[in-house]
Amino acid sequence: MEAGDFKDFAKAMTDYITEYLENIRDRQVVPSVKPGYLRPLVPEQAPQQAEPWTAVMADIERVVMSGVTHWHSPRFHAYFPTANSYPAIVADMLSGAIACIGFTWIASPACTELEVVMLDWLGQMLGLPEQFLARSGGEGGGVIQGTASEATLVALLGAKARTIQRVKEQHPDWTDTQILSKLVGYCNKQAHSSVERAGLLGGVKLRTLRPDNKHRLRGDTLKDAIEEDLKNGLIPFYVVATLGTTSSCAFDVLDELGDVCNSHDIWLHVDAAYAGSAFICPEYRYLMKGVEKADSFNFNPHKWMLVNFDCSTMWLKNPRWVVDAFNVDPLYLKHDHQGAAPDYRHWQIPLGRRFRALKLWFVLRLYGIENLQKHIRKQIGLAHYFEEFCNKDDRFEIYEEVTMGLVCFRLKGDNEINEELLRHINGRGKIHLVPSKIDDVYFLRLAICSRFTENSDIDLSWEEIKSCADEVLKGVSKN
Amino acid sequence: MEAGDFKDFAKAMTDYITEYLENIRDRQVVPSVKPGYLRPLVPEQAPQQAEPWTAVMADIERVVMSGVTHWHSPRFHAYFPTANSYPAIVADMLSGAIACIGFTWIASPACTELEVVMLDWLGQMLGLPEQFLARSGGEGGGVIQGTASEATLVALLGAKARTIQRVKEQHPDWTDTQILSKLVGYCNKQAHSSVERAGLLGGVKLRTLRPDNKHRLRGDTLKDAIEEDLKNGLIPFYVVATLGTTSSCAFDVLDELGDVCNSHDIWLHVDAAYAGSAFICPEYRYLMKGVEKADSFNFNPHKWMLVNFDCSTMWLKNPRWVVDAFNVDPLYLKHDHQGAAPDYRHWQIPLGRRFRALKLWFVLRLYGIENLQKHIRKQIGLAHYFEEFCNKDDRFEIYEEVTMGLVCFRLKGDNEINEELLRHINGRGKIHLVPSKIDDVYFLRLAICSRFTENSDIDLSWEEIKSCADEVLKGVSKN
Ligand SMILES: Cc1ncc(COP(=O)(O)O)c(C=O)c1O
Ligand SMILES: Cc1ncc(COP(=O)(O)O)c(C=O)c1O
Repeated sequence: MEAGDFKDFAKAMTDYITEYLENIRDRQVVPSVKPGYLRPLVPEQAPQQAEPWTAVMADIERVVMSGVTHWHSPRFHAYFPTANSYPAIVADMLSGAIACIGFTWIASPACTELEVVMLDWLGQMLGLPEQFLARSGGEGGGVIQGTASEATLVALLGAKARTIQRVKEQHPDWTDTQILSKLVGYCNKQAHSSVERAGLLGGVKLRTLRPDNKHRLRGDTLKDAIEEDLKNGLIPFYVVATLGTTSSCAFDVLDELGDVCNSHDIWLHVDAAYAGSAFICPEYRYLMKGVEKADSFNFNPHKWMLVNFDCSTMWLKNPRWVVDAFNVDPLYLKHDHQGAAPDYRHWQIPLGRRFRALKLWFVLRLYGIENLQKHIRKQIGLAHYFEEFCNKDDRFEIYEEVTMGLVCFRLKGDNEINEELLRHINGRGKIHLVPSKIDDVYFLRLAICSRFTENSDIDLSWEEIKSCADEVLKGVSKN
Repeated sequence: MEAGDFKDFAKAMTDYITEYLENIRDRQVVPSVKPGYLRPLVPEQAPQQAEPWTAVMADIERVVMSGVTHWHSPRFHAYFPTANSYPAIVADMLSGAIACIGFTWIASPACTELEVVMLDWLGQMLGLPEQFLARSGGEGGGVIQGTASEATLVALLGAKARTIQRVKEQHPDWTDTQILSKLVGYCNKQAHSSVERAGLLGGVKLRTLRPDNKHRLRGDTLKDAIEEDLKNGLIPFYVVATLGTTSSCAFDVLDELGDVCNSHDIWLHVDAAYAGSAFICPEYRYLMKGVEKADSFNFNPHKWMLVNFDCSTMWLKNPRWVVDAFNVDPLYLKHDHQGAAPDYRHWQIPLGRRFRALKLWFVLRLYGIENLQKHIRKQIGLAHYFEEFCNKDDRFEIYEEVTMGLVCFRLKGDNEINEELLRHINGRGKIHLVPSKIDDVYFLRLAICSRFTENSDIDLSWEEIKSCADEVLKGVSKN
């Protein structure tokens, strides 16, 4: 493909995606295809000769869009949001053109340095303590990970390295394997499944602890678990505090957990994957009280802050533990400036890395702090707007206090009726939701996911849910 | 940013990157900035108000490009290539606009299904055995990983799960920790540092074995190591065969390693990160003879096959071991079609995943198999063209047989003179190379990295190297 063709193709694609996004609410949110739908739509083999770009363009609706779940439709209320914005898309074009692999500073100084500075910008926007920022001149600093799952694993590996060293100082005769078999980490029973996976990957025990009746992990619960484990000869080394659980957006009481961790020299990692974006609004920072007691903090601008996937920002007070755990230094990656700037390959699981700081830079500048705050506040407002509908309808109840852009609700009654309700909703296909279950109580989650969502969209979603409830309850009363 | 602004911005960016790429050889390949160059060039904080896109556009040269190492310049000969093509950039725009997170089939059927089919297309192009392909109807299939490092780790985890189950059947009383402490994996001493890292991450021993005098790991060496370890009560479980080592592009003798692995029920993973792309040309497939004996196979289209980072394709004969090792199944991720199509989140380390199959699809169609083969053949031809210059100049020697797009060469003489040569070359800044060292022999690596490279570019690189050699040798003779 030559430059001239590229210009035409990129222009056609720009028009296409503008059209797609601006009219996304008119599409059926979840496609009605069955598994295996796509294979018959394309040839069995790659073509021998080059095709014209117009042929590819012509296949997008037929092959791709017919099987796409439209995450950016205002009718999409499943999971948590994922980000999508025009500035981030343009930034990714530039990133694709530069296409450097920023594993070391010298491999593209701009790639590393813009990331360092952007993580400082963003850290300030959240009100993170200076110890987490590179500009403080201390050891702390930030990094872009691919996903929150990786951040949780990276923090766990840092915690492991730090603890092994400490234990070895006390017990020089213990082997790594011996120590490893005694390590134990902790998280809320409602923590994201990636925490359990990090434990599996890292080969250490992770205990899930019972939250309080608001689904928050509390200091006393953690303290009791630690003391019990210490009595049994185990070595508590890692705690993940979740700010905004996936199930119901509950917030662990970080301040309490921080005290317990600090007094036992345990690494405290904060997983604020979804809710962290809200901390750019000062009125929500009470939910991260105690963050100065944490060792690492992570949230996903790629969820709720309009920076396209993948962009999961992580700050570490002392990255040395992670860097040392990963440091494998072949000659072809050595360079003259080692130590003067971070070599980010030591901060992450993969070796290669794209120039992802560009999209953060573009989004922060082209929205500005004010518009990003407006975005968060508007989406939380929409959640409360939906909550009101539930509150005003006697048949419904709110399952969890609404603080962010997620409403957990259910029909008063048993789980079956709520499962039936969700089947109806998703079966009719106008809107899309997923359920959750805590302590055997099944409920529905309505997340505000699209940046295009307006009150009128929520009106429609509510009408649809109400009408499904009518059907379901009529069915019940008939039996 | 509104749709109208986006169209203008995307158009401006399209023009900018076309201009950038088409004239990239005129830029200084490695920037002369010092660590910390960027911070003074940008404000200390993110702006409160939105800026116009023209302001961002105006900063790209000043802030970003002044610190970019131009990986796509024909003057860039460091590391291995990383891919960059117009079709992939346009595909990524679409991927950014759809912005689905394809962790399950239902989360966007097209995202999963196009990946399944593209991995079949590509697997056929390489001539992989049917057992690796989904279309065979067996258990095998492919997946896009972010990086080769992750593929190596994923394979290791699969191997670990398979071996633990087997050992438990024989020794029901052994604990996981006991078994884990006995597991041992193997690779060539010249294997990529990510293999060592995978061992660290997975918490298992990895032995690096001595290659033969052509830097290839041989069957007998592996066999001896395994027998020794078995005698000592260890459990050999995993072998990584490297096809195209990073240091010198040597090829382990897969066929021999395969026999040894198969007879000991050891998982054999093939890391063909760079060289794998060449297997789309039948004349290079002799280098992967024995691939049918492997359990998993990985290469990076994001290196040498014109698909932008990240796109590391991996095939597994039996993904079940990986899937089971990862399977953590919360309610909000369950859906009605589980089992009918892969839920790729179980095949990888992160949870979230972009719609990366689009760029594979665009590249395969817009180049066609023929042009991709031409690209590989041309780049290998350019390596031989450079090799000729070295051969014709008595002062130089070729360090390793040239088979792909990498030439390993050195001045006849000691390491110091070669270190001096590289310092001169990189110091003058016209071209960029990195060194390597095997068995204390230091040499220079010249990789053909840019798709824009022509014979005339190689002429220039050679002139520059020759002129640096003149200087260095003059210096020596003066002393
Ligand atoms: C609290 C929490 N942690 C972690 C994750 C995983 O995020 P990622 O896909 O970035 O790994 C999620 C995803 O929804 C989440 O809600
Ligand atoms: C042989 C080999 N394996 C693995 C890798 C790592 O690749 P990635 O950055 O995709 O993890 C490389 C990178 O150059 C390589 O040459």
